[in-house]
Amino acid sequence: MSHLGSLCLAWQVKDKHCLVIGGGEVALSRVQHLLYAQAKITIITGEGNIHPGIVKLNNEGKIFNFLQRNYQPNDLVMYETGTITETLDHQLISQFVHDQMIAIVCCCIDDYELSTKIYYQCKVKRLPVNIADKPPLCDFYFGSMFNQDNLQIMISTNGKSPRLLKIVKDTIARNFEGIDINKAVENLGKIRLGLRSKVIQDDDLASIEIRMKWIKDLTDMFTVGQWSQLDLKDENVSNILQWFPDFPPSNYTEFVASI
Amino acid sequence: MSHLGSLCLAWQVKDKHCLVIGGGEVALSRVQHLLYAQAKITIITGEGNIHPGIVKLNNEGKIFNFLQRNYQPNDLVMYETGTITETLDHQLISQFVHDQMIAIVCCCIDDYELSTKIYYQCKVKRLPVNIADKPPLCDFYFGSMFNQDNLQIMISTNGKSPRLLKIVKDTIARNFEGIDINKAVENLGKIRLGLRSKVIQDDDLASIEIRMKWIKDLTDMFTVGQWSQLDLKDENVSNILQWFPDFPPSNYTEFVASI
Repeated sequence: MSHLGSLCLAWQVKDKHCLVIGGGEVALSRVQHLLYAQAKITIITGEGNIHPGIVKLNNEGKIFNFLQRNYQPNDLVMYETGTITETLDHQLISQFVHDQMIAIVCCCIDDYELSTKIYYQCKVKRLPVNIADKPPLCDFYFGSMFNQDNLQIMISTNGKSPRLLKIVKDTIARNFEGIDINKAVENLGKIRLGLRSKVIQDDDLASIEIRMKWIKDLTDMFTVGQWSQLDLKDENVSNILQWFPDFPPSNYTEFVASI
Repeated sequence: MSHLGSLCLAWQVKDKHCLVIGGGEVALSRVQHLLYAQAKITIITGEGNIHPGIVKLNNEGKIFNFLQRNYQPNDLVMYETGTITETLDHQLISQFVHDQMIAIVCCCIDDYELSTKIYYQCKVKRLPVNIADKPPLCDFYFGSMFNQDNLQIMISTNGKSPRLLKIVKDTIARNFEGIDINKAVENLGKIRLGLRSKVIQDDDLASIEIRMKWIKDLTDMFTVGQWSQLDLKDENVSNILQWFPDFPPSNYTEFVASI
């Protein structure tokens, strides 16, 4: 445990208020992350230039509340009309959390003095906050994202190496780009199902372990891309299972020809 | 944007109080995530069996506060001795955040009624909380982690496919396992530096773009593993740069022989 890092978490902000302060390129990037998570986004920008990407998203109706004015401290509780207390019933607490609380604050302005103030105001209100470019004033950082199908991959180097981030992201992208990941999952699912229904039917621990080990080793023989290129019919699955407990040819071309 | 997901974030909980309620296998997994992020961990467990892994970590002094008793609602503010208000100066607010506030609550108990109560108590106190196995009662989920050197990769399928999670994690692990990622970064850094100091010295936008494009294409010719196996000296770097604006052989063995 000599290399330590962050607590990487997948936040659920669907339909929750998220506040972005600023209107530049960094703000746009935050908004894109938030849109992917289906957040209810409020943007507060001052008088400065607003990134055309943000204007476009607002014109498309994707921003819940777009305020072109300077930030005010009360903005952190702008949707709170009541008070949340332990005497409320569960449904009312849930409503308060969704309709009145701000879940996350992202501050992306160049004004260091103001952004420092915003950080401390957020802390007093117990709001999670990210002040762009000020790591000590951040409850959380954003990582580099790779999103595809149902898959989300966050890559974080804890600010230590942008070059590493790039190499790693390119490497991961090469694994999956242009690949129908769900098809690979479907094909391996068919083999697993066939193995269970036709070859080892028992559900005792030893049988489960043998099945899992064989499927794991078989999976590892080819890449996700190679698995996704197949369109396995019952006959192909049977041909693959004939090799059990051995394995089909490890050369992909020979493997495809053999099934 | 048809596939939507979570807001993936790298939380900074170093030296901040994090509360784990429960003492079983899930609690151990939460504690491991928190330890990696250097959190100050408090565990509250009831009378039940405590996972030996947790006992071990506590014996090693890695748990800040280990309480073997039932949870009480006041536990959510157990470290708060004062009140946080806007009249405090920045240093006092920072101290309060670090010494008195709980940053994150992870509840990992089998008692559905109690864990539901804990969720709503956390919301009233405005504390981020994860109730294990109860997705609707979670502000955040945990993903599957791949940690190596300065690199952290979180894989999330938003609960949609454990099999996908496994395949993706295995695929990513195969990219990096046993590989000195930092060495790959170092080697590519030497080439970039050489290109800049000896081949295209100018720093106008067009020159920067040409350098970046060539380095990107060169990087993509081999895997991180292959780049990490090299130990590039000045002479090797010069031999690689001789090919510019063309590229060295794309066959790795030929490439290594040529430099």
